[in-house]
Amino acid sequence: MKNTIFVFKDDSPKYKQIYEQFKLFIERGDIAADDSLPSIRQLADSLQVSRNTTLMAYEQLVAEGYIRGEGRKGYFVNELEPLLFQDDLVLPNKKQTKSLTQVLLDFRAGAVDQTNFPLKIWRRISNQVLTLQESFQYGEPFGEVCLREQIATYLLQSRGVKTDPNAIIIGSSTQQMLIYLGQILKDDFTSIIVEDPGYDGAREAFQFHGFTLEPLPVYESGADFSKLEQMTSRLIYVTPSHQSPIGVSMSIQQRQMLINLANKMHGYIIEDDYDSEFRYTQQPFPALASIDSKRVIYLGNFSKSFLPGIRLSYMVLPQLLLDRYKNQFLHFESNTSLLSQLTMATFMEEGEWNRHIKRMRLVYTRKMQCLVSELKKHFKQNISIIGEQSGLYVLVKIHLNRSEEWLIERASIYGVKVYPTSIYFIKKNSDEAIIKLGFSNLTCEEIQLGVKLLKKAWA
Amino acid sequence: MKNTIFVFKDDSPKYKQIYEQFKLFIERGDIAADDSLPSIRQLADSLQVSRNTTLMAYEQLVAEGYIRGEGRKGYFVNELEPLLFQDDLVLPNKKQTKSLTQVLLDFRAGAVDQTNFPLKIWRRISNQVLTLQESFQYGEPFGEVCLREQIATYLLQSRGVKTDPNAIIIGSSTQQMLIYLGQILKDDFTSIIVEDPGYDGAREAFQFHGFTLEPLPVYESGADFSKLEQMTSRLIYVTPSHQSPIGVSMSIQQRQMLINLANKMHGYIIEDDYDSEFRYTQQPFPALASIDSKRVIYLGNFSKSFLPGIRLSYMVLPQLLLDRYKNQFLHFESNTSLLSQLTMATFMEEGEWNRHIKRMRLVYTRKMQCLVSELKKHFKQNISIIGEQSGLYVLVKIHLNRSEEWLIERASIYGVKVYPTSIYFIKKNSDEAIIKLGFSNLTCEEIQLGVKLLKKAWA
Repeated sequence: MKNTIFVFKDDSPKYKQIYEQFKLFIERGDIAADDSLPSIRQLADSLQVSRNTTLMAYEQLVAEGYIRGEGRKGYFVNELEPLLFQDDLVLPNKKQTKSLTQVLLDFRAGAVDQTNFPLKIWRRISNQVLTLQESFQYGEPFGEVCLREQIATYLLQSRGVKTDPNAIIIGSSTQQMLIYLGQILKDDFTSIIVEDPGYDGAREAFQFHGFTLEPLPVYESGADFSKLEQMTSRLIYVTPSHQSPIGVSMSIQQRQMLINLANKMHGYIIEDDYDSEFRYTQQPFPALASIDSKRVIYLGNFSKSFLPGIRLSYMVLPQLLLDRYKNQFLHFESNTSLLSQLTMATFMEEGEWNRHIKRMRLVYTRKMQCLVSELKKHFKQNISIIGEQSGLYVLVKIHLNRSEEWLIERASIYGVKVYPTSIYFIKKNSDEAIIKLGFSNLTCEEIQLGVKLLKKAWA
Repeated sequence: MKNTIFVFKDDSPKYKQIYEQFKLFIERGDIAADDSLPSIRQLADSLQVSRNTTLMAYEQLVAEGYIRGEGRKGYFVNELEPLLFQDDLVLPNKKQTKSLTQVLLDFRAGAVDQTNFPLKIWRRISNQVLTLQESFQYGEPFGEVCLREQIATYLLQSRGVKTDPNAIIIGSSTQQMLIYLGQILKDDFTSIIVEDPGYDGAREAFQFHGFTLEPLPVYESGADFSKLEQMTSRLIYVTPSHQSPIGVSMSIQQRQMLINLANKMHGYIIEDDYDSEFRYTQQPFPALASIDSKRVIYLGNFSKSFLPGIRLSYMVLPQLLLDRYKNQFLHFESNTSLLSQLTMATFMEEGEWNRHIKRMRLVYTRKMQCLVSELKKHFKQNISIIGEQSGLYVLVKIHLNRSEEWLIERASIYGVKVYPTSIYFIKKNSDEAIIKLGFSNLTCEEIQLGVKLLKKAWA
């Protein structure tokens, strides 16, 4: 009777998906007896389903005897009679594969932790900003002065970069800024050195202006700087604090060599400091722009450290380029929400930004530890973990003689979304597949469940 | 005693400015006896001063006898003894000019009405959006589906444009969208026809890609379409609903001629429908894109109709260009705040957007009437008003044999900021100066005071 009511009340695809997914996991033994299930709240949030739908799916599984509720402790898997483990359920068949394409656990790197977001403070400041007269006008073309001042203070304190707020340009994204920047560089430069593997989005922005790309090979030990001698470009795009995607940091010797080279060749270094805030084992390294301000174009953003969807980025330009940039874009409207700029300026001024970064460093340290230990526990010698000292993801080299495509596809059958790294490579320097796992908006319980499912998927 | 306390309590530059400005106006007779002053709230808001500072400056003037308070009716100018009208005060001297450079009344077109902004509703939806999991991720590269669906519905209902939400691209500003759009047009097109006078920002975006500009003369009677025959460009950028800046609308004959030409030449019409919502005498005219969807690229934005600082624009692309655009920008991040997109989508879905437009049409109708009648009253035959049927500004042709620069400079001495139109012209077709007066965030009282001051300034 109870069952009927539930099924009658919620016959939505999401209800069915949760119900069928967990039923299958339990029948296949993917989740063992006494394993805990994600909490109602967690699962509802991560699937963007109502808690009610999630609750009903769980209650259906309780009713059928698959799981049990233990009050505030949550839901746990019941032991099943051996009869239920039928052979054709061990590997999902075609029909089941189709019905299970929705993602249960997403190891997405392009997200941030939601639980620790300073919701009340941000709301309060946003609401204040909406009462200011200046919020009802167009903003400054190069960004609001109050925000540029706050960024200048932050850059000095945290990245060692001394800059005048007037040398800062606010933009919406790294790619948008690179497209605008490329416009003032393309007359003097026709090619650019890029890290390989490296951020594909930057490469696309350079190709927008027809720049030729010269790939600089990067390994787990760092970039192969000896290759620079053979290169002719006087422009280089690098991620010195946390190489994207390998995660290695540039040594001070490499930094100085790069700056000397840029000075000698009258070139520029574009330093993308996209997630310098999150370094777990040491203090963040000072920026290249803290060593030299004439040859380094510094790029920063709030996508990893605050919210990707806020679309708030900035760059610091050397004087010569700054004059050219302001001349070129004097009559261009800002690309960035004035409201977000004013809110962020107050958020920083009140010290909330520094508090947020400190808090998030702790949160992400714990999540990183959890992911790395789960991976080691389940995969042992079958994987190598790359880049666990910093950032919001790790790369995992899989020694299983399987293709990247196979690994992603197999994971998806188990409801787990993992990400490729081949898109970052111009020339692939190894045959082994490397998978990217982001953890920022997953709880430790979700990370545990996710790794457990990956183990099953890739068995 | 009272005076001393006030001066002691607020010696800020803004206090002094209000106090000295009004003292001068009254002494010079710029504001006559029994004229009303702006309300405390209005003045404080428009100068971005606290109400307390404004109140103290007024009370100082009350104390000195320049003005009187009449309770809830506000403040009024007292009659002054003739002795006070000294000759050297009739025209401000150098020293006074310097001290009065701050703007009291700003006829800025790039602003929207603040008083009628749906603050509570917008806050409620913004705050809801911050609790969604999707707000903590990167958004869709071409804009959120929910917003594109709402825009498609709006375009059909209000602009007669039938479009699939998939053909809509969300961007941050008209200029950013034109730069991205230019990238997929520049291989096939090297020149573009632009209105003269026309939107300078669009011209700069086309020049970003090196397009040659062919100016199409526009007069108060409309564009000179006979000139099109001599032109070779197969691309044209127009503002058919409300020509920017002249304010004239394209007739149906002109619209059809343009579409036939684009079809014959295999070219494209870029239709910038930037403020079609505000037409006072008739219903807004249907968009060009409602007549033809294969040759018209439609651009719209929320800057005039909602908030310029929100940086939310969109374009509708014909299928051929859409495929190219999505191919070119598939790996580019969105330029527009995800939070703003999600908030606007709900705002539209709840019907608040339509209510807001209706309300603002009434508000702006009243303000436009007020500005036009004040101008006619004070300037009579000395001016011609252009474009009072629609939009958030008028152009005023000044028959006083004075240069644009002189008119702006003189107005600024009286604390009034007015705007040039020469920037919109490639070839100026008349010697008479044309001044742009926006009214969107001024009250009727402020408009009255502003026009009165302009009369004095230009006497």
